[in-house]
Amino acid sequence: MAQSKQESPFRGVVPYIVTPLKEDGEVNAELVCRLCNDLIAAGVHGIAPLGSTGEYAYLSNDQRSQMVAVTIDAVAGRVPVFAGVASYSVDGALLQAKTYGRLGVDGIVVALDAYFPLDETETFDYFWSAADAVDLPVAIYTNPNFQRSSLSISVVDKLSHHPNIRAIKDASTNTGRLLSILNRCEGRLDVLAASSHIPLCVMMLGGKGWFSGPACVVPRQSVALYELCARRDWPKALELQKKLWPVNEMFARYNLAACIKAGLERLGYPVGNPIPPQRPLTTEIRSEISSTLSAILQECSLAC
Amino acid sequence: MAQSKQESPFRGVVPYIVTPLKEDGEVNAELVCRLCNDLIAAGVHGIAPLGSTGEYAYLSNDQRSQMVAVTIDAVAGRVPVFAGVASYSVDGALLQAKTYGRLGVDGIVVALDAYFPLDETETFDYFWSAADAVDLPVAIYTNPNFQRSSLSISVVDKLSHHPNIRAIKDASTNTGRLLSILNRCEGRLDVLAASSHIPLCVMMLGGKGWFSGPACVVPRQSVALYELCARRDWPKALELQKKLWPVNEMFARYNLAACIKAGLERLGYPVGNPIPPQRPLTTEIRSEISSTLSAILQECSLAC
Amino acid sequence: MAQSKQESPFRGVVPYIVTPLKEDGEVNAELVCRLCNDLIAAGVHGIAPLGSTGEYAYLSNDQRSQMVAVTIDAVAGRVPVFAGVASYSVDGALLQAKTYGRLGVDGIVVALDAYFPLDETETFDYFWSAADAVDLPVAIYTNPNFQRSSLSISVVDKLSHHPNIRAIKDASTNTGRLLSILNRCEGRLDVLAASSHIPLCVMMLGGKGWFSGPACVVPRQSVALYELCARRDWPKALELQKKLWPVNEMFARYNLAACIKAGLERLGYPVGNPIPPQRPLTTEIRSEISSTLSAILQECSLAC
Amino acid sequence: MAQSKQESPFRGVVPYIVTPLKEDGEVNAELVCRLCNDLIAAGVHGIAPLGSTGEYAYLSNDQRSQMVAVTIDAVAGRVPVFAGVASYSVDGALLQAKTYGRLGVDGIVVALDAYFPLDETETFDYFWSAADAVDLPVAIYTNPNFQRSSLSISVVDKLSHHPNIRAIKDASTNTGRLLSILNRCEGRLDVLAASSHIPLCVMMLGGKGWFSGPACVVPRQSVALYELCARRDWPKALELQKKLWPVNEMFARYNLAACIKAGLERLGYPVGNPIPPQRPLTTEIRSEISSTLSAILQECSLAC
Repeated sequence: MAQSKQESPFRGVVPYIVTPLKEDGEVNAELVCRLCNDLIAAGVHGIAPLGSTGEYAYLSNDQRSQMVAVTIDAVAGRVPVFAGVASYSVDGALLQAKTYGRLGVDGIVVALDAYFPLDETETFDYFWSAADAVDLPVAIYTNPNFQRSSLSISVVDKLSHHPNIRAIKDASTNTGRLLSILNRCEGRLDVLAASSHIPLCVMMLGGKGWFSGPACVVPRQSVALYELCARRDWPKALELQKKLWPVNEMFARYNLAACIKAGLERLGYPVGNPIPPQRPLTTEIRSEISSTLSAILQECSLAC
Repeated sequence: MAQSKQESPFRGVVPYIVTPLKEDGEVNAELVCRLCNDLIAAGVHGIAPLGSTGEYAYLSNDQRSQMVAVTIDAVAGRVPVFAGVASYSVDGALLQAKTYGRLGVDGIVVALDAYFPLDETETFDYFWSAADAVDLPVAIYTNPNFQRSSLSISVVDKLSHHPNIRAIKDASTNTGRLLSILNRCEGRLDVLAASSHIPLCVMMLGGKGWFSGPACVVPRQSVALYELCARRDWPKALELQKKLWPVNEMFARYNLAACIKAGLERLGYPVGNPIPPQRPLTTEIRSEISSTLSAILQECSLAC
Repeated sequence: MAQSKQESPFRGVVPYIVTPLKEDGEVNAELVCRLCNDLIAAGVHGIAPLGSTGEYAYLSNDQRSQMVAVTIDAVAGRVPVFAGVASYSVDGALLQAKTYGRLGVDGIVVALDAYFPLDETETFDYFWSAADAVDLPVAIYTNPNFQRSSLSISVVDKLSHHPNIRAIKDASTNTGRLLSILNRCEGRLDVLAASSHIPLCVMMLGGKGWFSGPACVVPRQSVALYELCARRDWPKALELQKKLWPVNEMFARYNLAACIKAGLERLGYPVGNPIPPQRPLTTEIRSEISSTLSAILQECSLAC
Repeated sequence: MAQSKQESPFRGVVPYIVTPLKEDGEVNAELVCRLCNDLIAAGVHGIAPLGSTGEYAYLSNDQRSQMVAVTIDAVAGRVPVFAGVASYSVDGALLQAKTYGRLGVDGIVVALDAYFPLDETETFDYFWSAADAVDLPVAIYTNPNFQRSSLSISVVDKLSHHPNIRAIKDASTNTGRLLSILNRCEGRLDVLAASSHIPLCVMMLGGKGWFSGPACVVPRQSVALYELCARRDWPKALELQKKLWPVNEMFARYNLAACIKAGLERLGYPVGNPIPPQRPLTTEIRSEISSTLSAILQECSLAC
């Protein structure tokens, strides 16, 4: 068991990709393909459809499965594909997990949507059941901002004993929480950062990488940062981290999915608008994103 | 338009019914039928499947449609049936609304699940689009505790101008907000209470009734209260309201759906446990529910 | 004890008055006197210095004592004077309570400022200690919006057994909570509304009146509403309540103390600006207050 | 101006010390003296009375001044003394700041207690006014958990241009916010960690040290950690940081001041109970603190 845990596929820079839809509601496979090709060429270590950035909450189950299938086709085994699983009910999570397993994902990232407040036992049940239902590596995911439920550290600890559960991605802004998890679960559970944490800090504490929407628009720079961290070259890593941080700042100010979609449009990927009722960002915000991105890309190309 | 608004079907006591599932995940039609018969015999003015109490969030789309169909069959036109519609996306809401319309509901109660925060325009779009998609009376519903989005009074005001939008059900605990809505929208939009408001107060301010999970377990008493309010017999209404209030108090302390299910079990309806990962209430809480219910039923039978 | 409880002085319309300061930081006694005279002439049943509206949090202990002394002088026994007591520490509360007792107040309204979170026992201790320290009627006060602590209903119940504790003023917006308290403590504890509740509703449920900043600017109308409620003339009371409600709405939108100060300025009382760092309201908001007030005063003068 | 900023005294490990009171409410000067001597012997770089840990909110102004005077006497110039200033009003802050300046502090740490919500201009006014009132180095402090107000990064940026404002201590748990501040204000404003951040991470990002209640009970270990960070010996710093982190974790679970007082009692300083209505920690929690402390002290003595 410890052995299988060491082979966890969750590591490095894993961009959460957006879900580009055509007018008829079908996933734009061609665009997913182009985006995946470019991200893989930039060196990313995995691809994650159906995260917050992928607007999973706004998609039908059919659209979700289609997006996973299209991504697997596009990636074609070059890097692992991790699909997001999230539901209010255990049955809903199992259905998604099994479907994506059959489609051929390399792992799932499981989140919990809470309606009525859940206690720790109920939260534990949800994640444990999902991990039991598949024969796949599982990352558990917690995001107190969007999902109204949190995983206490003692529940995380208990979950870390499931053979399939290999990693946790925590999308709070509380970096101390990650150190608490590392202190308690290191060896059984890898820690990955989200875009609300500073990747550099998480890597330094013992993190294995980061899942991140913003990595879609700065993949090459993110990979460079990861490599500096992996080499423990902290002074250069800090220099690059400071240049990249405004991307995270900017995307935290507005609707994350809308921002990443706008950023990708700016970079030449016509991924379209966020799914209604979300409205496209205003021209003003799109300009802000555009100029922040330009500045960072320029600064980093000189530096990297 | 004003005319059609006056014929709104949303009024009186409308119990939110639970969703009893069989082991195979199918809706227990027989039990829904028995429950509806008893509620109608008790005098309720409508029946509402797929509310919070109906655990809509935990059901698949197929289960939802099945529950609506089963309820319509069970009610057989004796009182109107209002189905809950809730989604993160406009498309998801439209799909549900149209499906339930085809199945023959008499109205829909539309709620918004928010993932990324929405501004007022986006919130407006969602509700307006749903109202546009059907040829049915629509009640808009807001519940800041469970849905992480709220409808400002100016958005409510704008929505009240849609010909299909006839009523609002507000599940905050802020009764002053209802008076603000009545002051602004009376004539265009009827106000109904939820179980977090004191029905007596809402009726006195000009409300037309209440949607309520707890009405499932005290239907006769709720109808008696409604009739006292309708007759403006405030002293007797207050006396009854005070006796009934502990039901709302008790159900607010714990998971609402689990409580109503436990209450119905106590009254002889084997509706089963809440949907996992929700766990059944502890024996202790079930006893508390049982004895509170007994006390109220006895007190009110003497009084009513 | 039950007897003394029946003679509680907390009833009717009790305006929270503002604290007008001169340039040197001294309380403007002349203005307090004029305001109290006018409020008493309008029929109010008590006067309350050192509430939220009185900006107690922004005053030094010396200014607080001065404000209480000045108010007692101004009122000259015509109606009771109730001073606000609020502190983080028991000792701080006792010092204020004893000082105001010596100055001659007719009762105190005790609130708790919480820094570190307190459990129920600690909260209980604070209020019980304050009630023990004086030989005066005590109203306990809870305001979850401003004081980061709340009184659970079981703590309220326990406190209601103290002979000095006669009333509760709850400034949440949750009117159901008041019915829960009435059901549990009626006979031992009178319930009074705050400006976040609809006075009409609270009166109908069995409330004894309301403490309110807005009553400073519509005293005559508030007294008229109280009298309609006391006479149980609900239809007329509702009519007046609906006309008056926009005052509460407006003052809930902005800084309450700044609003009441602006409203009083508009009515000819030069009470000055809110205490820094609070800034005076913008000209735009002052105009909104002015025109809302004008509309209400005109509508009500025709009606009252 | 840039020059004076470089000489900022806010750096290194600065323990927030508790306020030990005698039965008569006087500060226990002897105990403060012993504690300061021991902390200075352990190598701390400054001493900070009147923080959250010092229970400033629960003290009278007289007790506050006494505590500052006693600390200055005890420290006798060996390290700088920084006194906490916090008030709802500008006048209250100025009074404290000037008093402590006259008593001879080496700097002040200014926090804002918010009652009515304040906008950015009002927040700015408060801090700028306090910095203007003294001829002392000022650290601005923000703690969203306890003070219901936050400093946006653009307000922090504006404040960083005041010649007296040299440092910021942020007690959120959001480490990314510190990087945003560093990116924007480095050179004008030093960043210090609070006990909710991982000191190692903040130091790595460019921080200058940390203000911390827990440093009272692990001063020698904290200084060792600081020195490893200062030497950029990250691997050893991480090793020690991981061992020390459970102190911060433990103190975050309960009332911070009560914990530090209990920890100091355990170490032989009879500093007494937290100020009422706060109750002493239960025996169970005190045992937990005791054994956590023992474990850490032993582990670190082997390591350091």
